Amino acid sequence: MSEEQRQVARAKKIKKGLIIVNTGNGKGKSTAAFGTVLRAWGRGLRVCVIQFIKAETSNYGEIQAARKLQIEWHSLGDGFTWLSKDIEKTADRARHAWTFAQEKIASGNYDLIVLDEMTYAFHHGWVDVNTLIAWLKVNKPAMLHLIITGRNAPQELIAYADLVTEMKLIKHPFDQGVLAQPGIEF
Amino acid sequence: MSEEQRQVARAKKIKKGLIIVNTGNGKGKSTAAFGTVLRAWGRGLRVCVIQFIKAETSNYGEIQAARKLQIEWHSLGDGFTWLSKDIEKTADRARHAWTFAQEKIASGNYDLIVLDEMTYAFHHGWVDVNTLIAWLKVNKPAMLHLIITGRNAPQELIAYADLVTEMKLIKHPFDQGVLAQPGIEF
Repeated sequence: MSEEQRQVARAKKIKKGLIIVNTGNGKGKSTAAFGTVLRAWGRGLRVCVIQFIKAETSNYGEIQAARKLQIEWHSLGDGFTWLSKDIEKTADRARHAWTFAQEKIASGNYDLIVLDEMTYAFHHGWVDVNTLIAWLKVNKPAMLHLIITGRNAPQELIAYADLVTEMKLIKHPFDQGVLAQPGIEF
Repeated sequence: MSEEQRQVARAKKIKKGLIIVNTGNGKGKSTAAFGTVLRAWGRGLRVCVIQFIKAETSNYGEIQAARKLQIEWHSLGDGFTWLSKDIEKTADRARHAWTFAQEKIASGNYDLIVLDEMTYAFHHGWVDVNTLIAWLKVNKPAMLHLIITGRNAPQELIAYADLVTEMKLIKHPFDQGVLAQPGIEF
């Protein structure tokens, strides 16, 4: 962002709920969304996290934190998609998560909603991205911020979004035989 | 991470404190670090955040959250480097932040330390990256995780690190004249 761009922004003084997309093959897509959740919570904003892949039985560090902070957090998936034994069940859960998210979005009760790992639902054809965009255009409250995370964000979503970041893997400890570690990576 | 890489990791069973670098020109470098802080805090890990650019007078959403959560958080910079009126003072502060960080790192009192926006100190020549790496090799407790954020991470640091992610700007709302908004971007 150049100083020139900042001046344009200040001159136009546009404030709006942002559509934020964190995509790419690297770490930090969900983690940055959770950092935004922390920041929003710090300012007293009303936050809701809806997870499309993580299951309600999961007990990651971020979920333990959310519980302590009384942040509304719904893990509606059934675990890791690519290990799914019953892909129709996984698909049904993702579709249910989107129906659930629609209620939350349209309710007007939130300042920030995170749709974590939702891109997989587009990628697998469980939710149609054009239908989603058309629905959001009509039903998303103007000041609500929405963060959608996951690999392979569809071009239509990127075109519609306000802020898109690609998290790109440069180097990962798995390559050196290091295990993922609690509290840091999950 | 392929299943093969996971198997290698499981077989080697290496656990170690990771050197994590979040770099690139996009959003989410610090935000992902703060997400990791939330996750680590959720698991009861001992966390310390040291900011090299943000000033102690700053009152961002993440700082408000840290205060509520009693997370140790030190903002030792003097604001935005590239607007610095007294670059020697800014440099002194960055060098002081590194001395301060060395004490915290060597103390053995933490599981995760974030050195936020530290890369600018390398970039401007205020801290020498090779000296830092040599010092860490001797003094960093084996299980301590370290996250270093900021643009232009030096190649030496990338070579030394375990986990490196590039946050790449794909699209930013400044380009459409939208202001940065509290609770979301700061």
